[in-house]
Amino acid sequence: MLGAITNTYGRAIVSSRSNLDRSSISHRPMIIKMSQFHWASTQADVEAHLRQAIPVREPLSVFEPKHHLVFAAPRNTAPALCIAACELVGGHRNQAMAAASALHLMHAAAFTREHLPLTDKPKLGPMINRKYGPNIELLTGEGLFSFGYELLARSDDPAQNNSERVLRAILEMSRAMGSQGMIDGQYHNLPNIQFNGHDPCHVERIRIKHVSEKKGQLHACGAACGAILGGGNELEIERLRKYGLYVGMMQGMLPWVEGKGKEEGLMKEVEKLRNLAIKELESFKGGNFGEISMFVNV
Amino acid sequence: MLGAITNTYGRAIVSSRSNLDRSSISHRPMIIKMSQFHWASTQADVEAHLRQAIPVREPLSVFEPKHHLVFAAPRNTAPALCIAACELVGGHRNQAMAAASALHLMHAAAFTREHLPLTDKPKLGPMINRKYGPNIELLTGEGLFSFGYELLARSDDPAQNNSERVLRAILEMSRAMGSQGMIDGQYHNLPNIQFNGHDPCHVERIRIKHVSEKKGQLHACGAACGAILGGGNELEIERLRKYGLYVGMMQGMLPWVEGKGKEEGLMKEVEKLRNLAIKELESFKGGNFGEISMFVNV
Repeated sequence: MLGAITNTYGRAIVSSRSNLDRSSISHRPMIIKMSQFHWASTQADVEAHLRQAIPVREPLSVFEPKHHLVFAAPRNTAPALCIAACELVGGHRNQAMAAASALHLMHAAAFTREHLPLTDKPKLGPMINRKYGPNIELLTGEGLFSFGYELLARSDDPAQNNSERVLRAILEMSRAMGSQGMIDGQYHNLPNIQFNGHDPCHVERIRIKHVSEKKGQLHACGAACGAILGGGNELEIERLRKYGLYVGMMQGMLPWVEGKGKEEGLMKEVEKLRNLAIKELESFKGGNFGEISMFVNV
Repeated sequence: MLGAITNTYGRAIVSSRSNLDRSSISHRPMIIKMSQFHWASTQADVEAHLRQAIPVREPLSVFEPKHHLVFAAPRNTAPALCIAACELVGGHRNQAMAAASALHLMHAAAFTREHLPLTDKPKLGPMINRKYGPNIELLTGEGLFSFGYELLARSDDPAQNNSERVLRAILEMSRAMGSQGMIDGQYHNLPNIQFNGHDPCHVERIRIKHVSEKKGQLHACGAACGAILGGGNELEIERLRKYGLYVGMMQGMLPWVEGKGKEEGLMKEVEKLRNLAIKELESFKGGNFGEISMFVNV
């Protein structure tokens, strides 16, 4: 039995490593209480790493849009989870910094693509403030994918003899980003979302499912990469991948659970995913347990 | 003095390793005589590798467009050059097969992107036969980049202890595909194209320069990757990178040199690039010299 782990507000979130404190889970208010301080601090580290990697310099026509699109994308918790997973298996956060940065780039590239105005899409209207034309966004956004792989490949350090790990992280990321991972590969055990109570309409269900699964995949990939780069064993990598999947799916549902037209039926789903996530963590007997457990404390 | 190396049609193309036979270079007819048989055979190997990697299977909505876009893109010589470079430095063609396939995927992804109808582009009209909508093309085309990195990362073979080489090839490719390589990195020594004689108009100049530089970059990357994966030393890698650059730039100019409205002024440029390319090859003292020298025999 280990002492309670507290979040930055001093609230106990994990009372023991073998029995996570489920009593601390409450449904309302459903705001993100999760380690806001820790998350912001890790996110700031990742952004500092990215700012160093993408200086605004000549030719400005290339680097300004690149810089803009990287930092215009909304933040997400996958990079921080990647670093927390690395630390949990005994690695140093620097070992996962390139992968965490690459995760943000992949997310920014996907975000750019999703907001690209195509001729077969209805016009987005003036509500999205487009700093650059679609052509620039397309070319730059696409380049962000390659830049993510470049950052990862560059993090190879012969002195650390980590080539195998870096290559495996590249493989994880390319599978998660390509079509393979998204539909038939590592995510065939995706939990089936049940819509109970005040059900959303059919179109909304599809949207919730899509957003939730995508976030699940990004977080699963992030946690697996962190575990790989931190030197975790196969069991740890797979447990953290699942943990990431559940955490990411929860994150994907939050806008509907917390929003104005909130979906009561989804709260049970969030609760179910949280319990699945906690179960994955329970098996870990060591490591920096504090930070990673905060991802379930939503 | 070494015996003449002949192409598949028995014509001498390299009379000695220290003095390539420039007399075999003629300006007309400016058709691609280059090792058409060899090229086609190597290209067929690359396509067989890709067909195995991208089977048409369920879910068809994902794999059919992927398969279609990979094979709908026009062929180019960068994959074959990659394999020839690998063989030149003493490697086996299988060591470069994943990289050659990835090069075709990158090219197919870029081709898809360039033909994507965006709201700020003039309508392409009915002349391009679009099998899938722009949304599918965008998502699938983008996935091809990641799939290229996946193929490369998967080719890592612990038994061969080739992780370092594979990672370096990934780095080469990500730099060439990202914005970095394209504008300020490895290609700052790009030869300046001179337009003599019957000059094309300004817009056409820009287009020739753009196409030629892009092809140069893809071929430079391909040749460097082949040399890296085949175990070439630093000097060999850099010489083959330059060779690829010149060969690719020549390839980029060919449509204008050979076309109906052919640009006489460009022929001198092609000749200049060919001489630069031959110079790079002259330093090689061994290896499978026959195949790679055919790329300059245009």
